[in-house]
Amino acid sequence: MDSERYERGWEKLKEIDGEAGERVIESLKDIAPDFARYLIEFPFGDIYSRPGLDLKSREIATVAALTALGTAAPQLPVHIHAALNVGCSRREVVETIMQMAVYAGFPAALNGLLAAKEVFKERDEQGLN
Amino acid sequence: MDSERYERGWEKLKEIDGEAGERVIESLKDIAPDFARYLIEFPFGDIYSRPGLDLKSREIATVAALTALGTAAPQLPVHIHAALNVGCSRREVVETIMQMAVYAGFPAALNGLLAAKEVFKERDEQGLN
Amino acid sequence: MDSERYERGWEKLKEIDGEAGERVIESLKDIAPDFARYLIEFPFGDIYSRPGLDLKSREIATVAALTALGTAAPQLPVHIHAALNVGCSRREVVETIMQMAVYAGFPAALNGLLAAKEVFKERDEQGLN
Amino acid sequence: MDSERYERGWEKLKEIDGEAGERVIESLKDIAPDFARYLIEFPFGDIYSRPGLDLKSREIATVAALTALGTAAPQLPVHIHAALNVGCSRREVVETIMQMAVYAGFPAALNGLLAAKEVFKERDEQGLN
Amino acid sequence: MDSERYERGWEKLKEIDGEAGERVIESLKDIAPDFARYLIEFPFGDIYSRPGLDLKSREIATVAALTALGTAAPQLPVHIHAALNVGCSRREVVETIMQMAVYAGFPAALNGLLAAKEVFKERDEQGLN
Amino acid sequence: MDSERYERGWEKLKEIDGEAGERVIESLKDIAPDFARYLIEFPFGDIYSRPGLDLKSREIATVAALTALGTAAPQLPVHIHAALNVGCSRREVVETIMQMAVYAGFPAALNGLLAAKEVFKERDEQGLN
Repeated sequence: MDSERYERGWEKLKEIDGEAGERVIESLKDIAPDFARYLIEFPFGDIYSRPGLDLKSREIATVAALTALGTAAPQLPVHIHAALNVGCSRREVVETIMQMAVYAGFPAALNGLLAAKEVFKERDEQGLN
Repeated sequence: MDSERYERGWEKLKEIDGEAGERVIESLKDIAPDFARYLIEFPFGDIYSRPGLDLKSREIATVAALTALGTAAPQLPVHIHAALNVGCSRREVVETIMQMAVYAGFPAALNGLLAAKEVFKERDEQGLN
Repeated sequence: MDSERYERGWEKLKEIDGEAGERVIESLKDIAPDFARYLIEFPFGDIYSRPGLDLKSREIATVAALTALGTAAPQLPVHIHAALNVGCSRREVVETIMQMAVYAGFPAALNGLLAAKEVFKERDEQGLN
Repeated sequence: MDSERYERGWEKLKEIDGEAGERVIESLKDIAPDFARYLIEFPFGDIYSRPGLDLKSREIATVAALTALGTAAPQLPVHIHAALNVGCSRREVVETIMQMAVYAGFPAALNGLLAAKEVFKERDEQGLN
Repeated sequence: MDSERYERGWEKLKEIDGEAGERVIESLKDIAPDFARYLIEFPFGDIYSRPGLDLKSREIATVAALTALGTAAPQLPVHIHAALNVGCSRREVVETIMQMAVYAGFPAALNGLLAAKEVFKERDEQGLN
Repeated sequence: MDSERYERGWEKLKEIDGEAGERVIESLKDIAPDFARYLIEFPFGDIYSRPGLDLKSREIATVAALTALGTAAPQLPVHIHAALNVGCSRREVVETIMQMAVYAGFPAALNGLLAAKEVFKERDEQGLN
C-alpha cells in the first residue's frame, strides 16, 4: 500500500465531500475494504489532487456528468454538496444541471434539479452556503 | 418564430463552435430545417446565453458530459474545439476528460482523450491555441 | 419571452400530461423557474405542437424511449398516463413497453411493465381508461 | 426447434426489414447461427407478430428507442428503412427522431437525423418512398 | 406455444433465481402474461439452457453487465442471489462488481457493492452461502 | 509514483492484452502520459492483479459489460482478444456476448458478435486460438 497516495486522497476526500464522503467509505468497510481504499486512492489521491484544473471546475464536470448519465442517483447529491463546499454558488450548480437538458434530455436535467432542491434544503437547515 | 432568440443563438453558436457549428446547421437544412432552428434557439439562444455560469465552465460541463455518455462521438470534438475557443487551456480539457474515468470508466476517458488528440492536431495545423 | 410559444406549450402540456405535468412545473418554481418555462416552451410549445405526427404516435415514441433508457423512472409513469390521455389503449402501451425487451433488454421492459401496472391501478381507482 | 415461430419470424423479418434484415442474418451464420435463429424467432416470430399494436407504431417505437439509446448505429438505419417499408411517411420518421431531443438530448436527435438523411438518399436512388 | 422450451425455461429459472424469479413471473401475470412466458422461454429456456458456458460464468457475466448498466436496480440483487445459488462465492461476486469501476466508473461499482451487501445480509439471516 | 504497482500492472497488461494493450499505452504518451500510467496502475496493477477471481472470469465479466454498454467499440475487441489470451474458448466468448441480448437488447449482442467475428478472423490469420 502506497500510504502517501492514501493520505493525500483521504485529506482531499474530506475537503471535497465532507462527512458524506466519510459515510461512503464507512459503508464499504465490511463488504469491500479494498474498494474503500481504491476510492480514496484513485479518484481523490490521484485525480482530484492533480493541478491543471481547479476544484470548482472539477466539481462542475462531475455534477454535469452524473446528471447526464442518470445512473448515479446516490452520488449526485454528494457532488452537489461537494461543488458548494469547494466554492461554486448554488446558481452555478443549477446552471450546470439545466444545461444537461441539451445533452442528455429534459428528464435528466429535471431529476438533477430535484436532487439539487433537496441538497439546498438540507444546507439551509444547516446554515451552509 | 422569435427572431430575437434566433439572432442571439446564431451569434452565440458562431462565438462558441465557429465553423464546425455552422456546418452542423448546414447539414440539417434539407432534412429538418426546423431542427436546425431549434438547435440555434434553445441550446444557444436560451441556455448558453444565460448569465450565472461563464462559458469556460459551460464547455467544461459539456465536454465532461459528452465524454461520460460516450454516445456523441461526432459532437465531442466540436465541444473540445469550443472549450478551447472560449478560453480553456488544452490542459484543462485533458484534465476534464481524464476525470471521467472515475465516473464513467476508463474506456470513456480513453476515447475522449483520443478525440482530444485529433482536435489538438487539427488546431496545431491551423496555428490555434 | 415569447408568450405565444409559452401559451401554446402550457395548453399542450395540460392536454397531454394533465395534473401530473402541472405538478412537475410547480416543483421547479423555486429552484429553477426558467427551466419550468423552457420545459413548457420547447418540448410542449415547439415539439408536441408540431403537425406531421399525431399525439398518439408521439406518446408511443416517448414511452418507448423512456422505457429503453431506463434512467427516467419518475417521467415514465407521467408519459404512460399521457399516452392513455391522448387515446392509446392500455394494450398499445403494454405492447410498446414489451417490445423494448428486444432493443434494451428484459430488465428495461420488465421495469416499464411494472410502472404501467401502477399507472393502470391508479387510473382504475379514478375511473379512467 | 419450433419451426412455426421460425417461419412466422422469417416472413415478418422479410416484410419489415427486407434485404437489410436478410443480410444481418447472413452475417451471423458462421459465428453464431443460433443467434441468427433467436433473432428471427423472438423479435420477429414473437414480438412483431403480435396483434395489439400496428406495425407503423411498432417501428415508430423502435426508431425512437434506437435514436435515444445512441448505441445502435448499425441498427438505426435498418429500422428507418423498416418504418418506411411498413407505411410511415418520411415526415413521421423525422418527427419521431426530432422529438428525441427532448428525452435524450440534441446530439442523439442530430445523429438520428443524419442517419435518416443517408437512408432517404439511398431510397431516392432506388425510387422508394 | 412451445411447451418444451417453456418447461425447460421454468426449471432453469427456478434453479437459478429461486423464489425471487417466481415472484417476478407472478408480478407479470395480470399486466402482461405473455411477457412472463417470453421471460421464461427466451432467457431461461433458450439462453441459460445452452451448453458452452457454465452457469457460474453466465451469472458473473450478468452481474457484471447489470452493475455496469446501472439501470436495472431491481434485477441486480436477483442475479447476485443467482450467482451465489449456482456456485459463485461471495468473494467472486464482490470481485466482479469491483472490477466494473474500471469499465463503468466508481458510482456503478459502489451501487453494485451496496446491493451485494443487502443480499449478503438477507442470506445470512436465511443461513445461505 | 509507486513503482511496484506500476511494474505489476505493466506485466499484467502485457499478459492479458498483449500488443494491443501496449499500443493503447503508446497512443496516450504525448497527450496524457499520466493517464497511461493510471491505466497501468489501477485496472492492471490493482484490479486484475487481485486474487479471488480467476482471469478467465474477469475477462468474461469485462466482455459482458462492454457488450452491454455499447459505448466502448474500440475496447471490446481488445478484451475479446484478452479473453482468448487468458484461456477462454471462442465458444465461451460467443456465449457471453449472446447472453447480453437478454440484458441489453439484440443490437448490443449483435454488434458484439460482429466484433468477435473480426477478432476471430485476425487470430485465424495469426494462427492463434
